[in-house]
Amino acid sequence: MSGPIEGVKVLDISMIVAGGTASSLMADFGAEVIKIEKPDTGDPLRNWGPFIKDKSVWWTVHSRNKKSITLSLNNPEGQAIFKELIQSVDILIEGFRPGTLEKWNLSPEELHKINPKLVILRFSGFGQTGPYKDRPGFGTVAECMSGYVNMAGFEDSPPNLPPLPLADEVSGIFGAMSGMMALYKRDTSADALGEIIDISLYEPLMRLMIPFVTMFDKLNINRGRSGNNFPDAAPRNLYHTADDKWVGLSATSQNTWETLARAMDVESLLTSKKFETNEARITHRDELNNEIQAWFDTKTASEILDTLIPTGGIVGQVYDSEDVAKDPHIAERNNIVEIDDPFIGPTKMVGVIPKFNNNPGEIRHAGPNLGHHNKEIYKEWLKYTDDQIDDLTQKGII
Amino acid sequence: MSGPIEGVKVLDISMIVAGGTASSLMADFGAEVIKIEKPDTGDPLRNWGPFIKDKSVWWTVHSRNKKSITLSLNNPEGQAIFKELIQSVDILIEGFRPGTLEKWNLSPEELHKINPKLVILRFSGFGQTGPYKDRPGFGTVAECMSGYVNMAGFEDSPPNLPPLPLADEVSGIFGAMSGMMALYKRDTSADALGEIIDISLYEPLMRLMIPFVTMFDKLNINRGRSGNNFPDAAPRNLYHTADDKWVGLSATSQNTWETLARAMDVESLLTSKKFETNEARITHRDELNNEIQAWFDTKTASEILDTLIPTGGIVGQVYDSEDVAKDPHIAERNNIVEIDDPFIGPTKMVGVIPKFNNNPGEIRHAGPNLGHHNKEIYKEWLKYTDDQIDDLTQKGII
Repeated sequence: MSGPIEGVKVLDISMIVAGGTASSLMADFGAEVIKIEKPDTGDPLRNWGPFIKDKSVWWTVHSRNKKSITLSLNNPEGQAIFKELIQSVDILIEGFRPGTLEKWNLSPEELHKINPKLVILRFSGFGQTGPYKDRPGFGTVAECMSGYVNMAGFEDSPPNLPPLPLADEVSGIFGAMSGMMALYKRDTSADALGEIIDISLYEPLMRLMIPFVTMFDKLNINRGRSGNNFPDAAPRNLYHTADDKWVGLSATSQNTWETLARAMDVESLLTSKKFETNEARITHRDELNNEIQAWFDTKTASEILDTLIPTGGIVGQVYDSEDVAKDPHIAERNNIVEIDDPFIGPTKMVGVIPKFNNNPGEIRHAGPNLGHHNKEIYKEWLKYTDDQIDDLTQKGII
Repeated sequence: MSGPIEGVKVLDISMIVAGGTASSLMADFGAEVIKIEKPDTGDPLRNWGPFIKDKSVWWTVHSRNKKSITLSLNNPEGQAIFKELIQSVDILIEGFRPGTLEKWNLSPEELHKINPKLVILRFSGFGQTGPYKDRPGFGTVAECMSGYVNMAGFEDSPPNLPPLPLADEVSGIFGAMSGMMALYKRDTSADALGEIIDISLYEPLMRLMIPFVTMFDKLNINRGRSGNNFPDAAPRNLYHTADDKWVGLSATSQNTWETLARAMDVESLLTSKKFETNEARITHRDELNNEIQAWFDTKTASEILDTLIPTGGIVGQVYDSEDVAKDPHIAERNNIVEIDDPFIGPTKMVGVIPKFNNNPGEIRHAGPNLGHHNKEIYKEWLKYTDDQIDDLTQKGII
């Protein structure tokens, strides 16, 4: 281990994606992350298809570098064990419905009595307060209510949900960031204590929508979908190529536009008043898109990139998974690394991002089997004997 | 100021969105962020429309809490001043084309000679290494090449670019997170030095695509667009209402599905073998969507939410900017706060996210005018006199 936060201890009792994204990022950078799961069933993420020999792809990648132990938190004996574990932990990540920890006598206040320096990240659909706090929290709903989905898609299409659990993942990154801020405060101030951080699924995505809230307030602009056009500049779009690929192109400054027009060498683009200024190009956007598309129609994606990139053109092919796997830049950056898993064998996955010069972090193993680290953790942390561990296992507590 | 990272000093010499998002998050939580801009023109983000009395909405919100000073970095006198400023700084954020800092004799190695504890966040389109490193870095291209765009949109539509600068913003959050990890390492280890962090625009979004890289490697699955359906479970979609709204619905576990069917009380949903198991529902997805849509067709969004939410249904309306502005939960969570700007008056914007119990952070002011803090910073930090500042201003160096 060589990450910047080596030595930081994290307990993750959350399920599915948001909290697990936060702990995954911490684990990438060296934290010791213990995932506490329900005995027998474990995190429902383990059941998300598709599967490699019964092992969920999602679990394999999202739980990499983490240790798995089992513990039943909804009975008193399990709660007592949890209170032992929490004593030496820096960060607790939880994602139960608001009120659940309190019901189990594991409220932040109770936990702070045991470990006053604990940083607690609380993930939930709508946060710990407010009229919707008791509603079930799912990313789909958060994405809809953040304002994001209304603007995704095309002018003549329905709104479009993101193609991955975006609300959960953005919340997870906010979680890792804010957890680090709280830990920094705690460990660089003489008297600083722990922290309770309340992270909903809708708010981080709403934070990314920040200009649109102010546009509506001050200018009464209520932006809808604009497909692949950019409302304030042109051209910026995806264009289809002769070999049935898509290429993204952006030439939103006057300089990049003029360079592009010269590189494409199309008479009308070079000389027509309709395309002379950004304002004119916005007015004649459809015509502009048609002219560019006509040029793209006659060329393959490679020909287009080979023509435009040397001139400084801002273009890139829309990559599918195979394109990503084959790209030489992605390969040279080691963005895809292979680890060897005892159950599914050599497995490629996205590497550690971003890249630290001195403390780069690393991928040590893929998502572990349920309870794989029970003996290690219960022996090392709590000094339990083999007999005690067997007994707790038989009783279904771990 | 009351944020967890009060006292941390950040110099941000980046432009547009990625680096500015990182520094914006740090500023929300109490860091002193000094934005260094080119004299006369400033950050191009200032020119992004729409405008409130000549003030860019994007600048107003993204540069809140930051101080603006001017400094010309491409001349030797400016570089010398920069080297004075950097001595007392914790984090430097830069976003120039790779090689630019080096050309100005401000390489990380040079800066570490002056301030060995400096954490340097380097944003660029493709990173500091690899065959594409010299290409211009724009979010559109990063979004295309990350694999994200290929999966966004509908099965029968072109791929769809995200409706906001997603690659930049996700990179920015990764930047704030990783900057905090480096700072934590530095300030909690006896001998730890600064760090150089290399953040491209395409990699953080590729990190969110993590399951798809492994699906392709191990299972040869190359996922395309699936609209608003979720490939592995049903129902999950957006449905249209009688009052022309859209509502997102997710019932991907057997339990939520059965509850939903009972709440909707539609005979076929309750009894048909076609909808009995998740597997069956995926097979008959179109028919399932049609049945649900038929029920939604006859009801307003409010009626639908009022019927389903009390049963625990996972539903939420697709909000536009007006809906976001009016929602009582968003209001009670103080997700939209009003600050008073001397030029554009009272202005609402998204509040600080996430919520810290003890050290909540705050919004102190909107994005400042160009060079507004020149006197304050050059006097306090470098002890320049008014005459020196006037002289540098006249020479165009600040």
